[in-house]
Amino acid sequence: MSKNICFIDGLEGVLKYREVDINELVKLPYDAVSYLLIRGRLPGEQELAEYSARLHAERRINKEVIDVIRMCNFNIDAMAALRTVISFISQFDPDLNDSSPEGNMRKAIRLIAIVPTIVATYYRMANGKEPLPPDPSLSHGANFLYMIKGSKPDPLDAEVMEKDFILSAEHELNASTFSSRVTASTMSDLYSAVVSGLCTLKGPLHGGARAEVMTMLDEVASPENAEKFVLEKISQREKIMGFGHRVYKTYDPRGVIFKQLSKKLAESKGDMHWYTTAEAVENVVVRELVEKRGKPIYPNVDFYSGVIYKYMEIPPQLATSIFAIGRVSGWIAHCFDQYERKKIIRPRAFMLDEC
Amino acid sequence: MSKNICFIDGLEGVLKYREVDINELVKLPYDAVSYLLIRGRLPGEQELAEYSARLHAERRINKEVIDVIRMCNFNIDAMAALRTVISFISQFDPDLNDSSPEGNMRKAIRLIAIVPTIVATYYRMANGKEPLPPDPSLSHGANFLYMIKGSKPDPLDAEVMEKDFILSAEHELNASTFSSRVTASTMSDLYSAVVSGLCTLKGPLHGGARAEVMTMLDEVASPENAEKFVLEKISQREKIMGFGHRVYKTYDPRGVIFKQLSKKLAESKGDMHWYTTAEAVENVVVRELVEKRGKPIYPNVDFYSGVIYKYMEIPPQLATSIFAIGRVSGWIAHCFDQYERKKIIRPRAFMLDEC
Repeated sequence: MSKNICFIDGLEGVLKYREVDINELVKLPYDAVSYLLIRGRLPGEQELAEYSARLHAERRINKEVIDVIRMCNFNIDAMAALRTVISFISQFDPDLNDSSPEGNMRKAIRLIAIVPTIVATYYRMANGKEPLPPDPSLSHGANFLYMIKGSKPDPLDAEVMEKDFILSAEHELNASTFSSRVTASTMSDLYSAVVSGLCTLKGPLHGGARAEVMTMLDEVASPENAEKFVLEKISQREKIMGFGHRVYKTYDPRGVIFKQLSKKLAESKGDMHWYTTAEAVENVVVRELVEKRGKPIYPNVDFYSGVIYKYMEIPPQLATSIFAIGRVSGWIAHCFDQYERKKIIRPRAFMLDEC
Repeated sequence: MSKNICFIDGLEGVLKYREVDINELVKLPYDAVSYLLIRGRLPGEQELAEYSARLHAERRINKEVIDVIRMCNFNIDAMAALRTVISFISQFDPDLNDSSPEGNMRKAIRLIAIVPTIVATYYRMANGKEPLPPDPSLSHGANFLYMIKGSKPDPLDAEVMEKDFILSAEHELNASTFSSRVTASTMSDLYSAVVSGLCTLKGPLHGGARAEVMTMLDEVASPENAEKFVLEKISQREKIMGFGHRVYKTYDPRGVIFKQLSKKLAESKGDMHWYTTAEAVENVVVRELVEKRGKPIYPNVDFYSGVIYKYMEIPPQLATSIFAIGRVSGWIAHCFDQYERKKIIRPRAFMLDEC
């Protein structure tokens, strides 16, 4: 990729955005990582303050958008509503058809700012509560938690939410990013490209996996059941959600960080239940698949993030859309790269099996 | 492709859907071609009657959907509204998450039936008119023209509209179809995959080209201006809309049929103006690029279809969405194939330049 948006070494378990290692990235605020992705370099202190101020100012949605959310189906997960609303608001963006770098940057900032507001508004309404206006004094992660819960979050929760967004922000040509690029390759507008990413992330083999991890943890219920649960899955040749990755043949570096974060949350809340349950599942999977059969099947980005959502009392219906909150910066970085190429992605049929 | 949905010989100018040549396909009703695409074989007489009856029954939209269309921005083309409404209605389809072949077929029929209704409803409202209910006695093409114009169309117009849908229905792994496949590869639902196709078709390098052809024909205005117009474009190294194709290195077989149809329409209406203007542009392009420079730049699917829309008084704001009315059957055929593969499309960065 011309701008080196992402580097993955799937054998060594290395992940970098724009040449910065993921272990360094999680020490930054999400806004700085978002800036890095869409602008290609880390911001200075003043640049970050300005970028954050613009993001905070663009978080609000108007009455018409709230009306559209009110018409959505609250019995399904938030992704269809999020996709519908992003598609809807695009029509009223004065920069919609301004495909200059400046016009695209203005749309990018609006998109990154507005996704958490839409998800939180949907969640509040789905639970019979009036939506809350965003709080411009809060970070991306803290504001999102505030908007869904109605009170300022615990600092550790806010920190973990930020890191969750960062760890979800970018991962080279995963399916949703690739579909955003295909859309952008026709010089379609940035909203269309993000909607395309949302359509693709929604699938159970992609962003949907996180919600399924949460359902699976409910099913396992306690560490004692892990052995039986995993052995049954393996004997029935069923997929175990949250394990294995097309690119990583070792422990997913995001999985390592998520595991540490979920342990920290568990300890801080004085409740090790979900952490130990997850760890018991991991231990059986690693013993059976890695040690006995030599398959490189380790927890991926979805596994311990599901544990985190358990501790933060985030319902599975929001899991994929929270993935989208983080990932939108990555999609946009790739779209900007694609716009510069001005070349339509149009494979021939014989290439399909290579993807 | 496992099911041979589409065959293109770009050197000889051959196009087949499911092994049936495009010159045979245009003799069929659109419904038969749609059936062929999504079911893999041509329908018998009774099968076609049943399929058409189901499509006709699914054309209606309810009040909530009309309310969403009413909230859309009527100052831009219909694509953002179409995308928003398809995304919206998906939430209320009882089969949304039924990914069995039967559930997907029910969604497919609803999607194919509803796209023209949404486009026509948008068009009527954008022009300050109340929307019309679909007429179940009319063909796909005739009903669409009826719903936008408010009176039963001339038989030749209806026939040309049907053929336009057929010629637009499928073209292997073009960008919008490919993005639908990427979306479907995560096992995301069929509506998401179609929305992704709409996002991608919207781009000016893809479906948007047809509207730009219409604008260009206005600019050229008469056959006498063609020479100067084309020579200027060539000297400024600007793209001439509606010419050239990534796959065809000869005359696009759809372009041949569209040219014949536009001549027939011109003669029937006793007004050769737009046809002769377009032909004059073609002649200069072919002389300058094919004959003098040996480049295989001929009219593609968009060029004479733009001429047809001129004669049928279809505004450029609808051009891309009419492309979508035809293409949705092709997208769905590819999604069905992708669902059977159960394998996520996830290229690595180094593969991007091969697409």
